[in-house]
Amino acid sequence: MSLVLDSAAQDLLFREARTANTFTDEPVTDEQVRAIYDLIKYGPTSMNQSPLRVTLVRSPEARERLVRHMAEGNQSKTATAPLVAILSADNEFHEELPQLFPHFPQAKDAFFGERPVRESAAALNAALQAAYFIIGVRAAGLAAGPMTGYDAEGVRKEFLDDDHTPLMVVNIGRPGPDAWFPRNPRLEYDQVVTTV
Amino acid sequence: MSLVLDSAAQDLLFREARTANTFTDEPVTDEQVRAIYDLIKYGPTSMNQSPLRVTLVRSPEARERLVRHMAEGNQSKTATAPLVAILSADNEFHEELPQLFPHFPQAKDAFFGERPVRESAAALNAALQAAYFIIGVRAAGLAAGPMTGYDAEGVRKEFLDDDHTPLMVVNIGRPGPDAWFPRNPRLEYDQVVTTV
Repeated sequence: MSLVLDSAAQDLLFREARTANTFTDEPVTDEQVRAIYDLIKYGPTSMNQSPLRVTLVRSPEARERLVRHMAEGNQSKTATAPLVAILSADNEFHEELPQLFPHFPQAKDAFFGERPVRESAAALNAALQAAYFIIGVRAAGLAAGPMTGYDAEGVRKEFLDDDHTPLMVVNIGRPGPDAWFPRNPRLEYDQVVTTV
Repeated sequence: MSLVLDSAAQDLLFREARTANTFTDEPVTDEQVRAIYDLIKYGPTSMNQSPLRVTLVRSPEARERLVRHMAEGNQSKTATAPLVAILSADNEFHEELPQLFPHFPQAKDAFFGERPVRESAAALNAALQAAYFIIGVRAAGLAAGPMTGYDAEGVRKEFLDDDHTPLMVVNIGRPGPDAWFPRNPRLEYDQVVTTV
């Protein structure tokens, strides 16, 4: 066995963890979200850009507004999950670079003066952080239900602004009855990895 | 403490793990890469798209060709890392959907008939899988050195084809002397998370 990570952790984060489609009523607390963030903030991004932003949809009226923008097959689970988070990329992340990359504060303008460059960097790095976030939810003993089936422009207008690009909506909670479908097959190693 | 993941695993994957800039000579074996893939293949993607592809650059002549496309500051570490992997997104991932999403084989054409739709889905989901890959390298007790500073079009032409978009190049190995800079600050919780 070539892994150092203990098998309980492997199971918790990858092997037994599943995308949940139903949840129990048990609330997800702000303390849990803080603990998740306090872990996953260390995941690496290019030049420590850290463009991920998280919008927790807690009020019933906000939840209702969000559900209207979800694809039909995602509406009932988004309506009933204990917590729903909108993950987005901050295309103005460079404003924080003097804090995040203090030994080269000029990076803000030298590398990221142009919006299309920022959008492309933010899309990649916020996606990396979205994956860390999903892993972090699992590290908290919770199940994540990440979804890309929603009206992105509608969610942006309703909850964000022109500087933020929605990446996904994630249901969070303890899995309920019949929480998942049978696991789909994965690609074989030789379909994914080649050597030159 | 709100996390279930044990603290040794938290340290291994996030808190103590760092982006390495130097490496020892110890080789990274195919068995290790197989073990990493066998873990991270379970990380979730939209409709199980699984668009990540990995090119292991093992031969000295391939390594030399790659180094020429790296930004100057990345060249020496890419030349000396025990293993270098090019991570890319397969924009023709839909060809594998009948295998990956067997209960709805029509998804291949119904959702992904158009290339721009595939490119956008592949970019997001391969980036999620790139993050799982970095976590997997750490789970194997190795350090990852992910880099976005390289000539993407050059790497694509040299190692991939028009159907694959390079995402990042990752140095992999055991950290060597002075392997990392002091850790950069992270954003505070309230700079990242808002509640509605």
